Amino acid sequence: MEARALIERKRDGGRIAPAEWRQLMQQYAAGAVPDYQMAALAMAIFFVGLDREELGALTDAMLQSGATLDLDHLRGGRVDKHSTGGVGDKVSLVLAPLVAACGVNVPMMSGRGLGHTGGTLDKLESIPGFRTDLSLAAATRQLETLGCALIGQTREIAPADRKLYALRDATSTVESIPLIAASIMSKKLAEGLTGLVLDVKHGSGAFLPELDRGLELAQTMVSLGADHGCPVVALLTAMDRPLGRACGNALEVEESIMALRGEGPPDLMAVTYALGAEMLLLGGAASDRDEARRRMEVAISSGKAAQRFQQIIEAQGGNPAVVDDPSILPQAAEVELFVATRAGVVAQVEPRAVGRGITALGGGRTRVEDEVNPSVGFVITARPGDVVRAGEPLATIFAADSAGVQRGREALAAAIRVADDADPPLPLISHRVTEAGVQLWDAD
Amino acid sequence: MEARALIERKRDGGRIAPAEWRQLMQQYAAGAVPDYQMAALAMAIFFVGLDREELGALTDAMLQSGATLDLDHLRGGRVDKHSTGGVGDKVSLVLAPLVAACGVNVPMMSGRGLGHTGGTLDKLESIPGFRTDLSLAAATRQLETLGCALIGQTREIAPADRKLYALRDATSTVESIPLIAASIMSKKLAEGLTGLVLDVKHGSGAFLPELDRGLELAQTMVSLGADHGCPVVALLTAMDRPLGRACGNALEVEESIMALRGEGPPDLMAVTYALGAEMLLLGGAASDRDEARRRMEVAISSGKAAQRFQQIIEAQGGNPAVVDDPSILPQAAEVELFVATRAGVVAQVEPRAVGRGITALGGGRTRVEDEVNPSVGFVITARPGDVVRAGEPLATIFAADSAGVQRGREALAAAIRVADDADPPLPLISHRVTEAGVQLWDAD
Repeated sequence: MEARALIERKRDGGRIAPAEWRQLMQQYAAGAVPDYQMAALAMAIFFVGLDREELGALTDAMLQSGATLDLDHLRGGRVDKHSTGGVGDKVSLVLAPLVAACGVNVPMMSGRGLGHTGGTLDKLESIPGFRTDLSLAAATRQLETLGCALIGQTREIAPADRKLYALRDATSTVESIPLIAASIMSKKLAEGLTGLVLDVKHGSGAFLPELDRGLELAQTMVSLGADHGCPVVALLTAMDRPLGRACGNALEVEESIMALRGEGPPDLMAVTYALGAEMLLLGGAASDRDEARRRMEVAISSGKAAQRFQQIIEAQGGNPAVVDDPSILPQAAEVELFVATRAGVVAQVEPRAVGRGITALGGGRTRVEDEVNPSVGFVITARPGDVVRAGEPLATIFAADSAGVQRGREALAAAIRVADDADPPLPLISHRVTEAGVQLWDAD
Repeated sequence: MEARALIERKRDGGRIAPAEWRQLMQQYAAGAVPDYQMAALAMAIFFVGLDREELGALTDAMLQSGATLDLDHLRGGRVDKHSTGGVGDKVSLVLAPLVAACGVNVPMMSGRGLGHTGGTLDKLESIPGFRTDLSLAAATRQLETLGCALIGQTREIAPADRKLYALRDATSTVESIPLIAASIMSKKLAEGLTGLVLDVKHGSGAFLPELDRGLELAQTMVSLGADHGCPVVALLTAMDRPLGRACGNALEVEESIMALRGEGPPDLMAVTYALGAEMLLLGGAASDRDEARRRMEVAISSGKAAQRFQQIIEAQGGNPAVVDDPSILPQAAEVELFVATRAGVVAQVEPRAVGRGITALGGGRTRVEDEVNPSVGFVITARPGDVVRAGEPLATIFAADSAGVQRGREALAAAIRVADDADPPLPLISHRVTEAGVQLWDAD
């Protein structure tokens, strides 16, 4: 195998065979194929794409570059959820304990925030003491007892993907649907799943803003899962505004705890229940969506879901008292209201501007090596379509100091638009994609 | 300037501004922009291209990364010739002393062979003692006395181009017309030329086999030259068969010496005179093509052209006696005839197969660090369209040992096809491209 010849073939629209992918990714992970050749190949893939067999082979090659979880001995299904990322998207924090409390194992591997979107690991680590760097052995033990482990991508899992992901980030080759799909799936298959639920965001704050690109990713992932014996169901959800009210690491943990106690905002709960029902169905813990919904409601009202989160926090070294007393979470030094400067209708709460505002407050990253301040962010109570009066509070700013408050004000002024009238926002959930095809979502 | 943002913009069809190109190439030459980012950008350029202003800015940026020759004090024009490369293409060796003998300065910077095509530097270095690594100061002094210096791309000239060229070779991004044009022109502009003649090969043995791609390169170079005050004239010539008879470093030097003495094969002389006439016109040493042709014929018949080559060889450390006695050149240990196995018409002499054969004999490179054996190669007397009898000699094999002879036989068996009939070969010279446009070549 000569990397240069493979790049040339892909560049000219040809195919790379499974054995070639395997050798290429092995040699890349070992440092024998240099970053500059992989960067050229990634850019060629951006333009030319991969066919279904190539995509499967690349995914296998990345999967096989590292270790995998062997969870066949667990009782019940093993289902994870992956989101393409958004602002205020704390669904994983609610969903993982909730679904585990309903009897489905959730081996959940998450990432950190970068750019305008947050990351589940950063949110979890705002809980004092919480550790996400469990070994695969420790994660397996925790799954045996609690049915859930919330971990980061360890060095053991898909090292070729880790390396390629960092390279794609540096070479503007992230936005390639086959490369996105292979990256997600190589990690998810390493978790030994029996099913995967995908939350594909679209709208201005999404990683892929256009609906058709989101649908393409969803269909690609569904096919890729089917080819690997891991059924994938994808929901297309709105990211033209933040999800829920809290945006910022500790603030989102607090909102997640409220959600597990039955006090979550309606949009967050709707997405959580929709994704959770798919997880219960894939995990064999419910036979239809109504039953799944009832089981989740009972898990919340009975306190079992919140209790499961408490147990997971304790098992991972965090302070479990946070579930009863969220004031244990890091608190911002400065808290100020942000009010409407005019009367009208909330026409937009633009998530990218909100996300950039969190980063401006010190709560996000522009580079992977940045530290984050967990306490800062926003609670945005204004929703698109709300009628507001001048002087009425739209949001609360949580900042480290008065300069931060000022940056937060500027960010919200750019993000929240009050106008005479407003277009309706995107439907919260719009499509469901399975092997059977794409269905319009039928809101209950 | 953030390299990642420039890659993304180019990838998405946008433009990179002149100041951005300058900074990017400076930082790349200095190692501050890593190879993997430049590789991704090169592949994006392969797909998206560069517009005329971008191409000029990239060329300037590479030119300005190094030193330039200041030759304004020389009497007469300063014209170089560049070929896109082929098999048996020894035109530079004949043309440089011939044109210099006609009063035009030829500051000629050449490259080494790689893959199936040979390189002028390798050919020159088969002359015992010949040095091509002159400093720019030494080359300038030689131009003052002899009107010609035959050198390689020194470390001083366009270092950003040197680095990018090696990277493109490793990442299959060589075949991008704007990148080819910028690479050639950044070096040629560093020579302080008043004109440049380009020999763009097409046909199966050419770097760009398709005529339309060759024409596109020619037009791109003509525009680029015009934008930099350096008129460029390009001729499109045939590379569906080798040029001349000799293929291999020392063998080609010998054929070049014969050509300078008036005994060159007709196709080699036709291309040499056609390119030479353009050089004399651009250099102000003739007012029309007929006059140019007569001056060159006189330079050859009077012995002045051969004498000038002798002077250049002596000035660059080589043994000048080689011009009178080519047997001083390295001689192959094994010399064998290659004969026709059937009667018929020579339907093809495929240059790529010939070039690969030279490499198989040890006379070419597959990697830049390979050493070459100057003595080996072929003299192919059979021309497409020749009627041959079974057993009639088609070529002579020059090899280092009997195993080499066998490899040479196999290469020629693959390259030379004798059939019942033959399609006519490509016209030797087919188009002339100038700022005025593309003209069909009118053979005399």
